[in-house]
Amino acid sequence: MAHEHSEDVLRRLKSIEGHVRGVQRMVEEDVYCIDVVNQIVAIQRALKKVSGILLDGHLHSCVTDALRGPDTAAREQVLGELIEVFEASGKV
Amino acid sequence: MAHEHSEDVLRRLKSIEGHVRGVQRMVEEDVYCIDVVNQIVAIQRALKKVSGILLDGHLHSCVTDALRGPDTAAREQVLGELIEVFEASGKV
Amino acid sequence: MAHEHSEDVLRRLKSIEGHVRGVQRMVEEDVYCIDVVNQIVAIQRALKKVSGILLDGHLHSCVTDALRGPDTAAREQVLGELIEVFEASGKV
Amino acid sequence: MAHEHSEDVLRRLKSIEGHVRGVQRMVEEDVYCIDVVNQIVAIQRALKKVSGILLDGHLHSCVTDALRGPDTAAREQVLGELIEVFEASGKV
Repeated sequence: MAHEHSEDVLRRLKSIEGHVRGVQRMVEEDVYCIDVVNQIVAIQRALKKVSGILLDGHLHSCVTDALRGPDTAAREQVLGELIEVFEASGKV
Repeated sequence: MAHEHSEDVLRRLKSIEGHVRGVQRMVEEDVYCIDVVNQIVAIQRALKKVSGILLDGHLHSCVTDALRGPDTAAREQVLGELIEVFEASGKV
Repeated sequence: MAHEHSEDVLRRLKSIEGHVRGVQRMVEEDVYCIDVVNQIVAIQRALKKVSGILLDGHLHSCVTDALRGPDTAAREQVLGELIEVFEASGKV
Repeated sequence: MAHEHSEDVLRRLKSIEGHVRGVQRMVEEDVYCIDVVNQIVAIQRALKKVSGILLDGHLHSCVTDALRGPDTAAREQVLGELIEVFEASGKV
């Protein structure tokens, strides 16, 4: 992953970690359930955004390299992984 | 939320926080993107489980109390919130 | 379900049926895959909307009746079903 | 799309169309809401499967051709479309 790219992903993951700690405090302080659930949905969205950034980088590096390369098995592997990620993405 | 209930939720959130830190290390160590994305999907699933536990508690406490109570506006509010949570749950 | 309510749901389902037939034609005419996939996503959203309307009616009728009633087992059943629907809703 | 491939997709879409009609009958016959919602979830899953098959074909044809070709803009376009589909896939 390009350095700049990975800095952005790390920054987002640190923010998500803080968000998870914030939700722990909400639970400790017995905040109204629906408000806690809405914060969890916000964290899930932030994670989805990180996945999107990672996949974008992956498509522009590994996938492009493999598909432009001569190795048929390597091509099949990157394409199979993409389909698996797509299928898993809905099943959260 | 019942004390036992909230202990379980907190324990899960702490584990999720550790999981997020683990993904940060994976990014720092430049682990293969697809493996990172799969860990993020696992975290999203763990968060969804926490939402389910919170909603279960919410249904058995606030929602049951409101619907059994005399206040029509309070009933409408808890039902409206449930619909919103359901609609948001798919849009992650 | 209230009559008016069920008319709205039926009208939406007929429109979804037509949309599915439209996607069949797209496939027969060999339309660009991504455009077909985007139409499928639109159909999934329309179905989600129908689920939301059905759940809204369900909460205001069966769930409210059961929770206001004296039968503890009936209450547990409607709440358990709601949790299951919530959990399944994300796993599409 | 390869002929065999598109036959499979069409067969699935016709089955989904029949499933949608079945749900209409359930609504007309005033079947229990939760059972209707569960059938809608089953249809959404079947649609997701069709999207997966279409994407698999797309990756092996258009995406592979574009990425192996000399046209940088065409490459960017197929990759951008994939990211959009991935992002939309969760927001149903």
